[in-house]
Amino acid sequence: MTTVAAYAAPAAKAPLERTTIERRPVGEFDVLIDIKFAGICHSDIHQAREGWGEAIFPMVPGHEIAGVVSEVGPGVTRHQVGDRVGVGCLVDSCRECDNCKAGLEQYCTGGNVGTYNAVGKDGEVTYGGYSEKVVVDENFVVRVPDGLSLDVAAPLLCAGITTYSPLKHWNAGPGKKVAVIGFGGLGHMAVKIAHALGAEVTVLSQSLRKQDDGLKLGADHYYATSDPKTFEELRGTFDLIISTVSAPLDFGAFLALLRADGALVNVGAPEEPISLNLFSVIAGRKTLAGSSIGGIRETQEMLDFCAEHGFGAEIELISASEINEAYERVLNSDVRYRFVIDTATI
Amino acid sequence: MTTVAAYAAPAAKAPLERTTIERRPVGEFDVLIDIKFAGICHSDIHQAREGWGEAIFPMVPGHEIAGVVSEVGPGVTRHQVGDRVGVGCLVDSCRECDNCKAGLEQYCTGGNVGTYNAVGKDGEVTYGGYSEKVVVDENFVVRVPDGLSLDVAAPLLCAGITTYSPLKHWNAGPGKKVAVIGFGGLGHMAVKIAHALGAEVTVLSQSLRKQDDGLKLGADHYYATSDPKTFEELRGTFDLIISTVSAPLDFGAFLALLRADGALVNVGAPEEPISLNLFSVIAGRKTLAGSSIGGIRETQEMLDFCAEHGFGAEIELISASEINEAYERVLNSDVRYRFVIDTATI
Repeated sequence: MTTVAAYAAPAAKAPLERTTIERRPVGEFDVLIDIKFAGICHSDIHQAREGWGEAIFPMVPGHEIAGVVSEVGPGVTRHQVGDRVGVGCLVDSCRECDNCKAGLEQYCTGGNVGTYNAVGKDGEVTYGGYSEKVVVDENFVVRVPDGLSLDVAAPLLCAGITTYSPLKHWNAGPGKKVAVIGFGGLGHMAVKIAHALGAEVTVLSQSLRKQDDGLKLGADHYYATSDPKTFEELRGTFDLIISTVSAPLDFGAFLALLRADGALVNVGAPEEPISLNLFSVIAGRKTLAGSSIGGIRETQEMLDFCAEHGFGAEIELISASEINEAYERVLNSDVRYRFVIDTATI
Repeated sequence: MTTVAAYAAPAAKAPLERTTIERRPVGEFDVLIDIKFAGICHSDIHQAREGWGEAIFPMVPGHEIAGVVSEVGPGVTRHQVGDRVGVGCLVDSCRECDNCKAGLEQYCTGGNVGTYNAVGKDGEVTYGGYSEKVVVDENFVVRVPDGLSLDVAAPLLCAGITTYSPLKHWNAGPGKKVAVIGFGGLGHMAVKIAHALGAEVTVLSQSLRKQDDGLKLGADHYYATSDPKTFEELRGTFDLIISTVSAPLDFGAFLALLRADGALVNVGAPEEPISLNLFSVIAGRKTLAGSSIGGIRETQEMLDFCAEHGFGAEIELISASEINEAYERVLNSDVRYRFVIDTATI
């Protein structure tokens, strides 16, 4: 066991504070990672405040982890000491169900293991990336390609893959009109990736406050959803809409922006049930769907794609002592576009 | 103009009664059809009672029409006198939008024209199949193949195509597990068609009352949704679920019966908005979708498919004077499985 410093929420809704946790010994197929950077995801806040149901405390959040391998177990073949690597939302899965075999570990039916706020196969609670080091099975560690800095790579492990996976699955690309609802941590990655895939990209944001950034990062158009004219003008326009927001939306209004056979895919998750008139999907054979992160193989593919196209996330680097303040700013949509903790400051 | 006898609802929620209506002269591309049989669809009742919003009265319902051509306009090339033909839910569309050009007239964005309770391009109200004759543009008339009796063919024009279209679109076939929610007019057609397509078919009905019929008509399994064990046993089972009911469902419970990447497609339409927790679609990248009837080309394909496989709808033939009683029985799910009006009795 190794004792490492970390930032943890001692209880639901309590501020995070510095503490120490134990990391397991490096097993046969394990990789010990010196964490360099950890992104702050909106879902960290949902979980630390028990917005998504009962959680395990103390909780060390963080599933956007980038670092360097400092030790490997004797059976490890995929990584070696000194490698620049990342860990996302999962650190294990059953590896035997149809979904795991298909590389869809995020939909594992045998029970996958979250990077934090979960219990591993060894019965121990998992702790996330707001810490100095982490021990992870090599199969759940991905390589950060050369040319991608670790700080801007960290948010790709959740915000990047969460948007890349549905954009690929629903065929965003040349000739396709893609809209992105919300222009925050997830939204700005959706814009970058959809643009790099060759789609025509429209941002649907509450206001035009971040329009300049949106156009700079790859959007072709930028509309305010607070303006009713947006919904008239864009009616029947899009092949695909990715909703990155966790606020409840008027889903009928957004479904009306799809063409026939279009899909509105939710990667944000409101805590409360939504209300939906089914005529909104019956007229035009439309799809309301959801998508959750991505598999390990696809996460590697996404990192390679981002490196090839020369982009990571847009980040604000903070020290660990600023985590609680950063949480408040995320809740106020006051971040451009992802807070990343410099874990040297823990 | 031709005066023909018909059954009409004089006002919302009023009983239907015998009356006469005018049919337009047979135009250059028109077909005059002697109607032989007209199916009673649940949506006739929704519309005659204004459950789906404001309607036009008097209303002659009926969009499951089977008959024989008795006159054709000089420009008609697709049909001739004596042909056995059918008319479904549409009698016109813009013919110019992307959807019309793709054979998806049901999703016409320029404005399609319903067979009744609509206004045609000539500005006249359309009247449906509960009548002796109808005049329809040849492009919205399909051929009833030899070997398919007109009485059992009539319900295929709505119940048949409404279930065939999503089953084909979502790839029901060998190796796929398909569930059908509801075993009425639409449901029994969904079972017959999914079975003929080669899928493994499960009926999810409120009770086991119609289980024998279900198994006889092509279902491999039949479960009662009133039994909570159904939802435990079938968890994560289906590739595709077609919901044919217009009652509000617990959508979370039914979405849980899908495998990853599965789709729940609604062809039934509750009058009220549904409540949905988006985690139900995010976990497993699931789709909640809808589908509305089918295009004209696909309707012909469906009739040919049914004839090839030797089946029509299961019907109870009634006389026109029994329409109001039949409506009550449909509302009580007391029909096996579609009422068809013998229009000779009008």
